[in-house]
Amino acid sequence: MKGSQVICTKCRKDPAIFFRRYSGEKLCKRCFLKSIEDKVKSTISRFKMLKEEDRIVVGVSGGKDSVALLYILSKIEKQFPKSEIIAVTIDEGIKGYREESLRIARKIAKNLDVEHLTFSFRDLFGYTLDSIFERSLRKGLKLAPCTYCGVLRRKALNLAAREVCADKLATAHNLDDEVQTILINFLRGDVERLARLEPVQSIIHSKFVPRIKPLMEIPENEVSLYVYLRELDFFSAPCPYAHYALRGDVRDFLNEMEEKRPGTKFIILNTHLKLLPFLKKSLRKGVFLKECIICGEPTPHKICKACELLQKIKN
Amino acid sequence: MKGSQVICTKCRKDPAIFFRRYSGEKLCKRCFLKSIEDKVKSTISRFKMLKEEDRIVVGVSGGKDSVALLYILSKIEKQFPKSEIIAVTIDEGIKGYREESLRIARKIAKNLDVEHLTFSFRDLFGYTLDSIFERSLRKGLKLAPCTYCGVLRRKALNLAAREVCADKLATAHNLDDEVQTILINFLRGDVERLARLEPVQSIIHSKFVPRIKPLMEIPENEVSLYVYLRELDFFSAPCPYAHYALRGDVRDFLNEMEEKRPGTKFIILNTHLKLLPFLKKSLRKGVFLKECIICGEPTPHKICKACELLQKIKN
Repeated sequence: MKGSQVICTKCRKDPAIFFRRYSGEKLCKRCFLKSIEDKVKSTISRFKMLKEEDRIVVGVSGGKDSVALLYILSKIEKQFPKSEIIAVTIDEGIKGYREESLRIARKIAKNLDVEHLTFSFRDLFGYTLDSIFERSLRKGLKLAPCTYCGVLRRKALNLAAREVCADKLATAHNLDDEVQTILINFLRGDVERLARLEPVQSIIHSKFVPRIKPLMEIPENEVSLYVYLRELDFFSAPCPYAHYALRGDVRDFLNEMEEKRPGTKFIILNTHLKLLPFLKKSLRKGVFLKECIICGEPTPHKICKACELLQKIKN
Repeated sequence: MKGSQVICTKCRKDPAIFFRRYSGEKLCKRCFLKSIEDKVKSTISRFKMLKEEDRIVVGVSGGKDSVALLYILSKIEKQFPKSEIIAVTIDEGIKGYREESLRIARKIAKNLDVEHLTFSFRDLFGYTLDSIFERSLRKGLKLAPCTYCGVLRRKALNLAAREVCADKLATAHNLDDEVQTILINFLRGDVERLARLEPVQSIIHSKFVPRIKPLMEIPENEVSLYVYLRELDFFSAPCPYAHYALRGDVRDFLNEMEEKRPGTKFIILNTHLKLLPFLKKSLRKGVFLKECIICGEPTPHKICKACELLQKIKN
C-alpha cells in the first residue's frame, strides 16, 4: 500500500528504518541503536571481557569501527564508576593518511571526555612505517607493508596499554573482520592462528595486556549504520598501503553467502567458538613465552616478530 | 620460441601436456596418468583404506569420477589376487537420465571384466525417486529431491554392499567434492557432519560396510583429464534434479582461490584431516547405533533417516 509505513517490531510505535534479515526484526532508530549497545554489553558479559574496576585502553584509529567502540564503551563505562577508559591511537607514520585520522580520534575522545594518547612507531621503534617500507624495498625484501604494520601495531598497542597500566586492551574488530579471519586462516591451514582467535586473548604473561573484542558480534554494516545514526565523525579514507587480496575475495564470498542465507556469519563465528577449545588442544605445545633477547617483550621465539622484522630493514 | 616444446619435468623425455600448478610439475601423458594412479595408491595406503583380501564394492554412477575410480581400482586390484571388485549402480528411478548412465556403467564394467550389479530404489524402497518427489510435492512437503536421493542412495549402497558381502564400499568423491563439503558444513556450522567426513568411515557396526574414498586427493580437473586421456566412456549429462545452490557458490569460490593460490584445496583437506580427531572429540556423545524399528538398519535414531523420509511421502 502506497504511503504505508512499516512499524518497529520491537517498540511497535515508531517507523522501522532497518530490517535485520538474520533475525527478522524491523527496527526504528531508537530500538536499533539500543540493540547495538545491548549486544555489545551481552558480548562483554558472554565472554567475561571486563571487570567493574578495569582500566581499559581502547585502540582508536579514527575509523568507523573504533569510533563506534569508543562511543559505546564510554557510554557503558559511565555505569561503572571504578572503571576508566583511555583512548590510544598508534601513529604508524603514514604520510597524508594518519594526520587526519589522528585529528578525528582526538576530537571524538575530547567530545566523550576520554583521555587520548598517541604512540608513534617512530618513538617506539625508531622508524615510521613509510621509512620501514622504503628500506624494505631498497633491500629487495618481498614483505608487504601490512606485514610490518600488523606486527608492529600489535606490539605498540601492548606497549601503550602497559605504559598506562591498563587491565584490558579493547580493539574494534567487528563480526565481519572476525569471520573473514577465521576463513582466511582456514584457507591457509593456519591452525595455530585459528586457535589464537579468541574473544579474550588467553595468553597469560605479566607483560601482556589481555585483548578483548567487544564488537565481534556486530556485523560491519550495523556498525556503519550505528555511526551514521549517532552522527559520529570518523575517518573513512582507506590506508594507502591497503591491498588485501585474499581478504577482499573472502569478504565478497562471505557477503554473498550472508545475502543468500542471512545468519551465515554468526554461524561461522559460533562454529569457530565451539571448536576453539579443541583447536587449542590440537596445538602440540602450549604457548610457552620467553622474553625477546633484544627488547625483552614476551614472545614464543628467541627474538620477537617485531624485532625480527626490524632487524631485516636495518643496515 | 615458436615451435619449442615443453618437456616433461618427470621423465625429461616426452612433451608435457599438463602443468600441475600446485606442484610446479609439467607432465607428459604417460607420467600424468601414472601420477594419478600412484596418488590413488598412496591415498589408499596413507589412510589404510584396503586390505589385500578385501572384497570391494565400487559405486558406479557412470559419471567421470566413478568411471575413473573403477578403472584405477580394477588396475590396482590385479596386483592383489585375493581381492575382488564388484561394480554397483544404484538406479534411483529418474526417467530420461539414469537409463543411459546405467548402460555406460555396465559397459565399462564389462570392458574391465568386473561384475556389475544394479540395485533400484523401486526394489529396495518400493518407489522410484520420480514418484517419491511427485508424492512429496503433492503433499506440500518442501524437501528437495536431492534430500531424498542422498539419504536413500546412501542406504541403498550399504544394502547393496552387504548383499554381496563386501568388506569395503568405495565411492568416487574427488578432492573438490571433499573440500566443498568441508566448507559447506563449516558455513552451516554442522560440526557433526564435519566430524563424520573421514577418508575411511569409522562407524563400526556389523551392518555397516566401511566406506572409502580413494580419489579424495585427486582434483576434479585431473580426474577429467585422466578419463579423457584414457579415452574412457562416461555419462556427462547433469541430473535433471540438480540444483546445488550453496555447493555451486562454494565451488566457484574455491576454484577462484585455487586459481590465485594453487594448493588451497589440498591445504583445506589437510587442515580438516589434522583437526578431525579433535572434531570427533567435540561431539558430546559418540555415535551409539541402534537399529531402526522399521527396517532394522543401523541408525543413531529410533527410525532411520530413510524410513523417516519414506513415511512422509506415504499416505
